[in-house]
Amino acid sequence: MYVILVYDFGEKRVAKMLRLCRKYLSWIQNSVFEGEISEVRLKELLLKAGEIMKKEEDSVIIFKGSTHSSLQKEILGKERCAIDNFL
Amino acid sequence: MYVILVYDFGEKRVAKMLRLCRKYLSWIQNSVFEGEISEVRLKELLLKAGEIMKKEEDSVIIFKGSTHSSLQKEILGKERCAIDNFL
Repeated sequence: MYVILVYDFGEKRVAKMLRLCRKYLSWIQNSVFEGEISEVRLKELLLKAGEIMKKEEDSVIIFKGSTHSSLQKEILGKERCAIDNFL
Repeated sequence: MYVILVYDFGEKRVAKMLRLCRKYLSWIQNSVFEGEISEVRLKELLLKAGEIMKKEEDSVIIFKGSTHSSLQKEILGKERCAIDNFL
């Protein structure tokens, strides 16, 4: 399964969420990740995200597609991926 | 065409970009928009975004799908849409 994950977390929790998502998906911009992931791994990720997040303040949106090819990606401006692989 | 648009803009330009995107798409989180849009309208939006952005600092990512139903959306935590419709 191909997913795009976008989060909006409070400043205190954002670094922790970034580290978590990096273990499961590829970082593409600020708080946006994408990648192929199994249902089980995604559940695991969301469970852990739920432990980090404050539900009344933070949010995570996941877009699920059957395959990567169901979406076409276009980037304008600076590509962030390369810069920040070592965060 | 269904698109998800995510931007990462410098602080000085972010409000302008938010206002621009609101004219074309539905806001769903922080700097994330989605919606049905024609090729022509999308080109127009990206042209205007290009005028606002600093290409060496900012970025826009667009995911294009043929239809809304090619993606399934799931939200955890706070839904931001309703709160901020009047920005």
